[in-house]
Amino acid sequence: MNYKAILKLSGIIIVLIACLMIPSLFVAFLYGETEVMKSFMSTIVPMLFVGGFITTYVKAQFDHLKVRDGFIIVALCWTLSSVLGAFPFVISGYIPDFIDAFFETVSGFTTTGSSILTDIEVLPKGLLFWRSFTHWIGGMGIIVFAIALLPTLGISGQRVAKAETTGPTFGKLTSKTAESAKILYLIYVGMTLLQVLLLILGGMNVFDALINTFGSVGTGGFSIYNNSIAHYDNLYFEIIISIFMFLAGTNFSLYYYALRGHWRDFFYDSEIRCYFIIISSAIALITLNLWTSSIYASLGESLRFSVFQSASIMTTTGFASADFDLWPTFSKMILFFLMFIGGCSSSTAGGIKVIRILMLFKLLKRGISVRLHPRAVVSIKLNHKPVSTDTISSVVCFAFLYFGIFFGSTLLLSLEGFDLITTASAAASCLGNIGPGFNLVGPVLNYSLFSDLSTFMLAILMLVGRLELFTIILLFTRHFWNPDK
Amino acid sequence: MNYKAILKLSGIIIVLIACLMIPSLFVAFLYGETEVMKSFMSTIVPMLFVGGFITTYVKAQFDHLKVRDGFIIVALCWTLSSVLGAFPFVISGYIPDFIDAFFETVSGFTTTGSSILTDIEVLPKGLLFWRSFTHWIGGMGIIVFAIALLPTLGISGQRVAKAETTGPTFGKLTSKTAESAKILYLIYVGMTLLQVLLLILGGMNVFDALINTFGSVGTGGFSIYNNSIAHYDNLYFEIIISIFMFLAGTNFSLYYYALRGHWRDFFYDSEIRCYFIIISSAIALITLNLWTSSIYASLGESLRFSVFQSASIMTTTGFASADFDLWPTFSKMILFFLMFIGGCSSSTAGGIKVIRILMLFKLLKRGISVRLHPRAVVSIKLNHKPVSTDTISSVVCFAFLYFGIFFGSTLLLSLEGFDLITTASAAASCLGNIGPGFNLVGPVLNYSLFSDLSTFMLAILMLVGRLELFTIILLFTRHFWNPDK
Repeated sequence: MNYKAILKLSGIIIVLIACLMIPSLFVAFLYGETEVMKSFMSTIVPMLFVGGFITTYVKAQFDHLKVRDGFIIVALCWTLSSVLGAFPFVISGYIPDFIDAFFETVSGFTTTGSSILTDIEVLPKGLLFWRSFTHWIGGMGIIVFAIALLPTLGISGQRVAKAETTGPTFGKLTSKTAESAKILYLIYVGMTLLQVLLLILGGMNVFDALINTFGSVGTGGFSIYNNSIAHYDNLYFEIIISIFMFLAGTNFSLYYYALRGHWRDFFYDSEIRCYFIIISSAIALITLNLWTSSIYASLGESLRFSVFQSASIMTTTGFASADFDLWPTFSKMILFFLMFIGGCSSSTAGGIKVIRILMLFKLLKRGISVRLHPRAVVSIKLNHKPVSTDTISSVVCFAFLYFGIFFGSTLLLSLEGFDLITTASAAASCLGNIGPGFNLVGPVLNYSLFSDLSTFMLAILMLVGRLELFTIILLFTRHFWNPDK
Repeated sequence: MNYKAILKLSGIIIVLIACLMIPSLFVAFLYGETEVMKSFMSTIVPMLFVGGFITTYVKAQFDHLKVRDGFIIVALCWTLSSVLGAFPFVISGYIPDFIDAFFETVSGFTTTGSSILTDIEVLPKGLLFWRSFTHWIGGMGIIVFAIALLPTLGISGQRVAKAETTGPTFGKLTSKTAESAKILYLIYVGMTLLQVLLLILGGMNVFDALINTFGSVGTGGFSIYNNSIAHYDNLYFEIIISIFMFLAGTNFSLYYYALRGHWRDFFYDSEIRCYFIIISSAIALITLNLWTSSIYASLGESLRFSVFQSASIMTTTGFASADFDLWPTFSKMILFFLMFIGGCSSSTAGGIKVIRILMLFKLLKRGISVRLHPRAVVSIKLNHKPVSTDTISSVVCFAFLYFGIFFGSTLLLSLEGFDLITTASAAASCLGNIGPGFNLVGPVLNYSLFSDLSTFMLAILMLVGRLELFTIILLFTRHFWNPDK
């Protein structure tokens, strides 16, 4: 284990997070929130001091990073950021319990959007800004920052990136990881600016526009109102937010192809087609169900809420324009399935990801036809190219691990004694980085009911989901720490 | 498609089912139930006539049976038996709705034990006997009858058997399928006689002893009391029934090895060890949970109900010695997981089966370690022998299909508008051939609340689960009927 390199990187992360808190400090200053400013200052200053000290005085070589180190660095990056990011909440006294504050920050960085706050609206603007800004940072991955930043320090980000993106990746953007990270980052920034602008043009104030944009493009879902987007009751806002949630849940590397004029690659991509088909089917089915159950007065209104909620849940954002917990069982069941599917690979969304679902579906189709033709050899194709058996078995393993973790954590969580739906949906929601669940963790409620132990477990679950399972799970294996045994 | 062979086989099945109704007719006669006798007679006589006619006059060659024919024969065998078996219920007027009667009979033959009867206790003895006797017939599989019987007609049962046992099978009992079917059948009969004897010795009347034995060794779970085994409130009965449920959920081919003195094969078998570990863990966890939640007065009482219920649910029997729907969420969650696991392969139990769960677990373990050692080639072993990749991919496919069918049917069922738990547990319970679920389909309740369409779907679901998914699912593929396209 390259401990020195890991320590030096921790120093860099500390400095980085401190710098990323400065905009929130500025917001607190703008709104004259002295207490909040103090809590930010008393976090930022020591962090800069400690981080700067480590970065300056620890001499480390980054040439010998192993896969093992990569996993630790990625895990460390996210947990350290979440621990540090929790301080302003604790110091200001708005979330006095550290575990709760940690949960809230992990929920931010992992773009989950689950909250332990019973009344969000009492929080000062500075803290609300930081809370949502963590979505934006987490959205594209702190890791992208690291990849774009670290090479300037002479560190290649390749190893680190490998540990994070265990999902299937197809094609390379450019030969250099740092270069591609920058491109993805620019697309992300561009998308952010566009959404802020469109929301402001629609009459939303700048602060709210920023908050909702962070929540959308990061597919996070933290709102500053207790009843989320339903607060505005504004069709235009819902449409804009729906579109940007949908865009954020799309594979970002395809935007790069599209920008370079390769529209064919964009529209003929198997994953994006499947993504579109799933979301359209969900919208159609929920709309029909809501309309026929007379939940809303008209077909139009049913469509309005169905579109927003389907986009919000499938992209694992978690914004709510209605209390979908009151919807009929059929609609809730569809939303529950969408929670597991999630968005596209290389997007800011969580869940199992559409590409894996698509591959599993093709695997299943092959498995059925093999029953009739035992000797036929059929390869699984994606975008007209055969998929390697290694990729397939990694996807299969991912899916089983996903369900295994879901079942295991649901079981542990059930010790709290809440009903099955609350328990299962809380676990599914945190693992998939969605936000709200059903029943006691429904869209107009929150996660404050859980004990500290469960709150902590749910926070870890968000990290596990965000870092594509293996990154965190491996750290819990004996083999990881005793490679020679 | 060899239509003539299929028709001739249908004739044989009709005659067979008619003969199997005779014991129930005898029971009705013993208890002087004239109406029930009439309804049996008016089913048996036409069946013998029609079946005998087909068997005698249809000339068919059984040499050219294809895999395709095998699937149709197996599916036909079960559906035809269930349709015919439903007549006495309808004719006697005790289950006037044909779909309901079909559900009840499918539930019997598939050894599920779900009932649409709101008051079981009003049924006459003759019908109660038939209802439970279908468990006993279904338990070892009508197919075993067919395999043991058909060779005497010059038909090899090999093809038929292949279609049914799509699960992993290890080792052959004897070279001839018919021979092994007979041995399994003898073990089954021996087990039945032993349990009946033990229950009678404990003071149970002969009728009840037979009913409960059919329910146990067939892992069916139909009871003649509305509150199932809780009716007796007798520890001895519960112990005997628990033991026999456990034994019926064990791989029957291992009994054959044990009978021939190969005890090592029995106790060192990976599946049986895993089966034992899972059920012991479930018992321990539920006992602790019940005890600490003060559901029952003492640790002993908690253990008593935990043992019975764990054995009942894991072996997919579905008997209830307590209303486990009132247990804490943690215990219910464990029972819910057991529903999916099910018993051992080549047993009368349903579910995914322990051996598949074990293989998936090993696959997962390998998948995780591959992350650290990408170039290592590790084969998956079972009983110290490597498992072929074909078997593994068939198991993977099975598991995904199982969950796929579970999700799909839950979604369809949710259109009924019942709560999520009722809906999901009804689907899981029918697919896994268990019987009771939670909430509105809990152990002291029944399936009468569903519409005809849903009742029919649940019946099909039981068949799908019983026939290891593929047998039925394939019949719904276009490819099956148009092999050349």
